[in-house]
Amino acid sequence: MKKRIAVTTALILALTVPSAFSAGQYSPVFDKVNSPQDVKKLNTSEMNILAKDIRTAILNKVNTAGGHLGPDLGIVETTIALHYVFNSPQDKIVYDVSHQIYPHKILTGRKDAFVNPLAHPEITGYSNPNESPHDNFILGHTSTSLSLASGMAKARDLKKEKYNVVALIGDGSLSGGEALEGLSNAAVLNSNMIIIVNDNSMAIAPVEGGIYNSLAILRETKGQTKDNIFKSMGYDYYYVEDGNNVESLIKTFTKVKDSNKPVVVHIHTLKGKGYEPAEQDKETYHWQLPGFIERAGKVQPKVETYNTITNDFILSKKKKDPSVIAVSPATPGATGMTKDFRKQMGENYTDVGIAEQHAVGYVSGLASNGAKPILEVMSSFIQRTYDQLSQDFAINKAPATILVFGGGISGTDVTHLGIFDIPLISNIPNIVYLAPTNKEEYLGMLNWAIEQKDYPVAIRVPSGKVIKTGRVDKTNYSDLNKFKIENKGDTIAIIAAGNFYKLGKEVQEKLKKEQNINATLINPVYLSGIDKQALEDLKKNHRLVITLEDGCLAGGYGEKISRYYANSGMKVLNFGADKEFTDRVPLEELYKKYHLTSDLIVEDIMNTK
Amino acid sequence: MKKRIAVTTALILALTVPSAFSAGQYSPVFDKVNSPQDVKKLNTSEMNILAKDIRTAILNKVNTAGGHLGPDLGIVETTIALHYVFNSPQDKIVYDVSHQIYPHKILTGRKDAFVNPLAHPEITGYSNPNESPHDNFILGHTSTSLSLASGMAKARDLKKEKYNVVALIGDGSLSGGEALEGLSNAAVLNSNMIIIVNDNSMAIAPVEGGIYNSLAILRETKGQTKDNIFKSMGYDYYYVEDGNNVESLIKTFTKVKDSNKPVVVHIHTLKGKGYEPAEQDKETYHWQLPGFIERAGKVQPKVETYNTITNDFILSKKKKDPSVIAVSPATPGATGMTKDFRKQMGENYTDVGIAEQHAVGYVSGLASNGAKPILEVMSSFIQRTYDQLSQDFAINKAPATILVFGGGISGTDVTHLGIFDIPLISNIPNIVYLAPTNKEEYLGMLNWAIEQKDYPVAIRVPSGKVIKTGRVDKTNYSDLNKFKIENKGDTIAIIAAGNFYKLGKEVQEKLKKEQNINATLINPVYLSGIDKQALEDLKKNHRLVITLEDGCLAGGYGEKISRYYANSGMKVLNFGADKEFTDRVPLEELYKKYHLTSDLIVEDIMNTK
Repeated sequence: MKKRIAVTTALILALTVPSAFSAGQYSPVFDKVNSPQDVKKLNTSEMNILAKDIRTAILNKVNTAGGHLGPDLGIVETTIALHYVFNSPQDKIVYDVSHQIYPHKILTGRKDAFVNPLAHPEITGYSNPNESPHDNFILGHTSTSLSLASGMAKARDLKKEKYNVVALIGDGSLSGGEALEGLSNAAVLNSNMIIIVNDNSMAIAPVEGGIYNSLAILRETKGQTKDNIFKSMGYDYYYVEDGNNVESLIKTFTKVKDSNKPVVVHIHTLKGKGYEPAEQDKETYHWQLPGFIERAGKVQPKVETYNTITNDFILSKKKKDPSVIAVSPATPGATGMTKDFRKQMGENYTDVGIAEQHAVGYVSGLASNGAKPILEVMSSFIQRTYDQLSQDFAINKAPATILVFGGGISGTDVTHLGIFDIPLISNIPNIVYLAPTNKEEYLGMLNWAIEQKDYPVAIRVPSGKVIKTGRVDKTNYSDLNKFKIENKGDTIAIIAAGNFYKLGKEVQEKLKKEQNINATLINPVYLSGIDKQALEDLKKNHRLVITLEDGCLAGGYGEKISRYYANSGMKVLNFGADKEFTDRVPLEELYKKYHLTSDLIVEDIMNTK
Repeated sequence: MKKRIAVTTALILALTVPSAFSAGQYSPVFDKVNSPQDVKKLNTSEMNILAKDIRTAILNKVNTAGGHLGPDLGIVETTIALHYVFNSPQDKIVYDVSHQIYPHKILTGRKDAFVNPLAHPEITGYSNPNESPHDNFILGHTSTSLSLASGMAKARDLKKEKYNVVALIGDGSLSGGEALEGLSNAAVLNSNMIIIVNDNSMAIAPVEGGIYNSLAILRETKGQTKDNIFKSMGYDYYYVEDGNNVESLIKTFTKVKDSNKPVVVHIHTLKGKGYEPAEQDKETYHWQLPGFIERAGKVQPKVETYNTITNDFILSKKKKDPSVIAVSPATPGATGMTKDFRKQMGENYTDVGIAEQHAVGYVSGLASNGAKPILEVMSSFIQRTYDQLSQDFAINKAPATILVFGGGISGTDVTHLGIFDIPLISNIPNIVYLAPTNKEEYLGMLNWAIEQKDYPVAIRVPSGKVIKTGRVDKTNYSDLNKFKIENKGDTIAIIAAGNFYKLGKEVQEKLKKEQNINATLINPVYLSGIDKQALEDLKKNHRLVITLEDGCLAGGYGEKISRYYANSGMKVLNFGADKEFTDRVPLEELYKKYHLTSDLIVEDIMNTK
């Protein structure tokens, strides 16, 4: 789970969830460290005190505001050593995965945002140069640091400047395509470039794969194995056995500082270090909601969500058909693939690690060879796979099923928005992109997608509270692009897709009640095509069609309806998100701005003559 | 250059270009080989005769129809050995880069398409299961084979079937993100998976990078180096020093056949083998237009194209400013970065290899640290970088310049279409995507993009014959989204973007001449935004706006205009390509289908009342 909760929620929780910590619990060392310069003045024993306090501050913040935990607890000593040895911001430190940046934020002037609940919302959970000159990029997706740092290093060389460029990668992000491309290219930079691989033997869940095999053998041999992947590429290589020992780290960082060639420092750290439950259960404590300390050890009730519905259904399919296989790109927790689910799936589950491109190629190969693969991926991360969706999946008409989770407008961080999957997926030919509006419809679509052999299918998994009709859905979704006309009215037609079907129904009811208009209500079902016959029919007794979609309007669904009617007298209003990157803007604010409430929509309808 | 020319052109050339070969030049061995079964009956000396004939057939075809040359000449013995040892189609062979598939096509029933000029257009230049059960996927982009083959292997295991899955990768495609993700994941398949790395020490141009360092050291040590990247990941590893020796290949393939774990066979081949000019100049002969044999040794006159204009300008900038740097993802030839250009650029040129994601991250890092990077990339390959465009480039507002070449509707192969870059790029917030309509405007935009510090900029490089105005363009493109109104008329407005500005002008002239309508003609300049003021003004005295774009309409530019006017009385017609994958459909046919001629457009305009 990489998403942070929205600011407002965080703030409310910060003020209401009791903290397990109180003021005055930090040492004088912690109090006096406000910048990297202050770190340089410390001796080793002070640094160890500082490390303890940083952990307390992180636990404090995450327990009140939620956020990443394990990765940050593991990287505390590394961060202290980095700031002791290097001179940020003159030396450039590029964080990746930037969710392991909390200790860096604490050491670079943003301590208050960790210790003071009221200040929690002032900072993001990721690297952000708008907060501090010690952050070099806005980063949230993984695997980007090596390419970005390579560019910085090359710019430095072209400008004949001298300083260190350091990329801190790890926590599972080394297996991503951009990281591996970057690793290959950084090797030939022929000047200073220091790559620190934070090897905690995990991504979010435990990791598998050749890259991780190679790290494991290096760990086992304390860096001495014969087959060293980094050396094979041309890197100088250093291994730090105890990556949570600040002295060892300082010693090694000092050695590589000012290196005139690319070097890899492989550090072996403990994810969750210093908080026993997180050390024991690294996956669960990768990220936490507020109040986790108070919740620890208490069994949480199982609540039905679209996540549980999805994976219960897949498990039941697998029990009947051994060719059913579920695939995750390192985010099983975010999509509800629990440890129990994975155990029961056995060989019929693959976690490919952070490797979304491979995931799409893999399920395309599985489907092309007769298996029934289901890939579960977050909307924000499906972005990494445009070419694979187009080439491996769509052109080959591979009958795999891709479930897109977390799609929709939200108050989340700029790097984790879920509003671009409709423009991205629905404009690729051949792919059938479905938008279910309730539990039964979703299961009908899911079953159809898994069993059919003609189409590459993606389904935008609904978000929010589960809506049930109580009626089994027996629609044949091979009848492509056919609208479900839920109410046949006149004057106004409402085409309300997926998550926003509910909003469409509210608008319909409001029009009836307040304006005495019996509006037509349509569930368009498909985001990847339009029902031309139905749209043509609407011309007879409707003057206005409105579209509602829970995503970005630019390139999205509504524009297809606008284009269809553009040469006719039919008027159209498209409702959805503007083309913009929003950063932790409260959802209610966005809905107001985009006119996504039934009040505002009805007003717009009545103003369109 | 990975593009094939369209069928019609190929056919015309096939009939007019004199062939350097004549019928009856093939041996009896070649004549009797029509399937893999026939290969299995041959002895080594017959195989060597066959290899020679296959080369003749490839040279024959490419000289009459154009196509890939060097990669195919290098892989002849490998292909013979593969079909001798393995049992396709029961054993699955997945080609990557599939442009090295010609020998496979010759051995699997498609010989006639190579030896008979009239049959040349019957096959594609890439893997295609519609042609033969021996091809497993439609493939054209590189780096996909390991993921696809992994999926096939896993499906086999789930179904408890037994056969070999072989992925043939190489010719520079191992450095691509999907390939590296796939290499990492295939290592843990725990069953049969045979990866053949065709190492010819080249991509299209010579390759650099850590991955290639590791192959180079393996070659130098005949596979014996201590630091073996493949072994480090957990693979069994075999090295074939002479990858053009059919006996060595058969011996090794026989050893790995039916392996019950993932294995890498690293074969060292000679790109262009058997055709002296191609052995000597591997880059030039990677791909050739028809008639290359007759052209060999003759100096070609330098013709001004948008490629030469681009790189002449970049070189002149670099001479004044050492922070200007040009970057290519392994396609310098396709975008006009000649050997001379690269030599003169020196340290200010980087070929990152097939690694488009890294390329976008790299230029984002360069720009963020004060350099002036220009990335030259083909429209078809920019598809690999959606997430990097969004995260590294757009969110960070990195003021780099990305030049998109080859964008537009064409008669090319399904895997290399250039119609999706507008939907892909223009719907990402923050990116300024420009569509120049002539040489001077292009240079104005290019200069602005390189020098400005506020925006991530992409430019859709014009295609076709160079159009000149003779007037230096001094537009300030920071005045975002401002239309250039080239003729202020009434009744009809024509918004004609980029390559199709010329078509728009033809329509305007035709309306004037034939219908006595003084239509407004607009160059929209920006594909990433609309000029709302200008659109509002058109409402006063226009009844119809038409949009013209050289790309896919779904998610494209025209839909934004339709959406803008959807709640008004203004009618709109959007002209562009349908959302579909076309495969070597002649351009004229597509233009007719999409109504992209001035005759058809004027007819549609007059039919819209």
